[in-house]
Amino acid sequence: MSATVSPLAPKSYPVMPPVRGVRMATAAAGIKYKNRTDVLLMAFDKPAAVAGVFTKSKCPSAPVDFCRSNLSHGVALGVVVNSGNANAFTGMKGREATTLTAKSAAAALGCGENEIYLASTGVIGEPLDATKFSGVLGDMAKSATGDFWLEAAKAIMTTDTYPKVATRTAKIDGVDVTINGIAKGAGMIAPDMATMLSFVVTDADIAAPALQALLSAGVGPTFNSVTVDSDTSTSDTLMLFATGAAAADGQLRVESADDARLAGFRVALNDLLKDLALQVVRDGEGARKMIAITVTGAENDVAAKRIGLSVANSPLVKTAVAGEDANWGRVVMAVGKSGEMADRDRLAIWFGDVRVAVNGERDPAYSEAAASAVMKENDVAIRVDIGLGSGQATVWTCDLTKEYVAINGDYRS
Amino acid sequence: MSATVSPLAPKSYPVMPPVRGVRMATAAAGIKYKNRTDVLLMAFDKPAAVAGVFTKSKCPSAPVDFCRSNLSHGVALGVVVNSGNANAFTGMKGREATTLTAKSAAAALGCGENEIYLASTGVIGEPLDATKFSGVLGDMAKSATGDFWLEAAKAIMTTDTYPKVATRTAKIDGVDVTINGIAKGAGMIAPDMATMLSFVVTDADIAAPALQALLSAGVGPTFNSVTVDSDTSTSDTLMLFATGAAAADGQLRVESADDARLAGFRVALNDLLKDLALQVVRDGEGARKMIAITVTGAENDVAAKRIGLSVANSPLVKTAVAGEDANWGRVVMAVGKSGEMADRDRLAIWFGDVRVAVNGERDPAYSEAAASAVMKENDVAIRVDIGLGSGQATVWTCDLTKEYVAINGDYRS
Repeated sequence: MSATVSPLAPKSYPVMPPVRGVRMATAAAGIKYKNRTDVLLMAFDKPAAVAGVFTKSKCPSAPVDFCRSNLSHGVALGVVVNSGNANAFTGMKGREATTLTAKSAAAALGCGENEIYLASTGVIGEPLDATKFSGVLGDMAKSATGDFWLEAAKAIMTTDTYPKVATRTAKIDGVDVTINGIAKGAGMIAPDMATMLSFVVTDADIAAPALQALLSAGVGPTFNSVTVDSDTSTSDTLMLFATGAAAADGQLRVESADDARLAGFRVALNDLLKDLALQVVRDGEGARKMIAITVTGAENDVAAKRIGLSVANSPLVKTAVAGEDANWGRVVMAVGKSGEMADRDRLAIWFGDVRVAVNGERDPAYSEAAASAVMKENDVAIRVDIGLGSGQATVWTCDLTKEYVAINGDYRS
Repeated sequence: MSATVSPLAPKSYPVMPPVRGVRMATAAAGIKYKNRTDVLLMAFDKPAAVAGVFTKSKCPSAPVDFCRSNLSHGVALGVVVNSGNANAFTGMKGREATTLTAKSAAAALGCGENEIYLASTGVIGEPLDATKFSGVLGDMAKSATGDFWLEAAKAIMTTDTYPKVATRTAKIDGVDVTINGIAKGAGMIAPDMATMLSFVVTDADIAAPALQALLSAGVGPTFNSVTVDSDTSTSDTLMLFATGAAAADGQLRVESADDARLAGFRVALNDLLKDLALQVVRDGEGARKMIAITVTGAENDVAAKRIGLSVANSPLVKTAVAGEDANWGRVVMAVGKSGEMADRDRLAIWFGDVRVAVNGERDPAYSEAAASAVMKENDVAIRVDIGLGSGQATVWTCDLTKEYVAINGDYRS
């Protein structure tokens, strides 16, 4: 947790209503520091349907392995999240720690170990002492409460400078359902399946396969379209739970993601995922600017996204934005290195509404003053038209500042 | 040109002997600044055989297009290099500028325009006023001298903090031949065919196809194995010229790269290319540490190089090295995100000679003090053993410092 809050932080937090069927509690287990809240327990009143997407890293953390293996069971009774230690690259000790944590949580909640989900964030490579959880989980299960979302978001922060929460409502069968989510960033963020840790819960009654389909589709234009530093965590985890409590109001269980009744829910869910994902970017380590990169006219949507990420991950583009320099030459460079089809002489580039380049050279009507004004804003929009096809995509990133280097040059010690 | 010389700069420059058959001159043409040397002319006494490798960018600069098109002719009489303006993304004006520059150079040297090679480095997207060359090239052709290598290296610097030169000798047919090279970096450096600008000249008599084969093979483990910031320039150019002057001493022309007489020459050339490439990394923008990353035990050599570059381009690894932090967890992360086969529980990682991790967890014998001592050195070696096969590769990069951000956040203005 950093002392200085990102200048891109939200001006206010939404009021987070409780979601029927889930309760939460936090505790200070002393994972890395004494007297710092570092454990979150989510407890479901009844078995909740569960879906998840995880890092594509070939070296995932022990908790990621554990969750993946439990997902086939499809039911969740509890989630334990800790900060301070990622339990990643901890070998056999890592597996022992997940087993022990799940055992403690299952005992506290009176359920099976395969109904528990785990996530850890923090330092990689240090053994996690899971005995510390056993002393606190029992009390947490008893004290857990539904009106606890902002506290939960705070509990999972590491280098985040603000907690990330979002809430939406939708109707299924005319019944109001709620979707709440929390997330944490803020470095080692790159799109490769899920990004960072995020937990989303709804009281809708949706079966696990449908929930998984919704989440897998929703992650593409949201969490998988943001990048802070192109580095993919070993622990990236995004989970979606459905408590089914809305059944009490007459909502009939949804079995398939193709069900037309999900139309409004899908929109609300995707909007919430985008909200959380952008909050993560806005809290990118050292970020002073939010950058939205829209690519149009690419060969296809996949090419557009790849070009967008090439721009978003370019240190030279990111430092130019940090320096409030409308350096579109670096955007050309990043388009060129993406490997996707591009024709130099058809490119057009905008910063905000200012077209700085067209037909492969500087826009004759280009105004340095107008472009500079765009660069001084907190939010900078860059648009690139490739001029070849109709593929398009938008990705989001933040600038690269000296503070990023400072934060990451002195993290472990 | 920066005021502060990189702490990784060579302690001395080699004495650069003249290479028979080539002369050079520099001038201040006022491309971007007044009274700053910004043009280099290389003039060959007789037609030299020529080979080149160029950026893979889909948006290459006009000079790259120009050189590519002339290469089929196979013969060079002159090279014009300018700093201050990259003549990239300048549309039709860019092509007009290359045509005019080549015309002026051909007139000054009394040769065809297709025997001229061009390279430009500096700002992207600004039209290059090639009329400025016409006034100086005639005088340069007259005053050009063979004992001019260090001055030539200085003339092509942009954000470089020191000139990059290297020289080697070899024997072909018992005849001594010389190979001299110059290069410039120092940002927008990533392996994608050639990297940055580099010009190498030998007095050996080698036919163009053989020269091209030597260069294309030599660039893999040298220039294409270094990265500063993962950004690929639109202008990357590496050219190799053979004046053939050694024929006067009895060296018989080499027609094929497979010719056994090239054995010593190949070794000398590759060694020179590596020397220049590493000088570029040591002058990486803001660099305080040189990092050599060796990957062993990968599925194959290609996988090893890809894993190495994933580590080398990770902002989190690079900032950790800047902070002198032996943060091997970030190395694991970078291995995991490479996409190549890896088994977390077989990984072993060394910083220098200190094994910090083995069998997927912290080395029980790991000494924080010993690892910290390694990190305090200017040159830091990281080794990763994947434990799966026999593929190996070494790549080189530098650390990511606040100075990199400062240099690139305020370059164009």
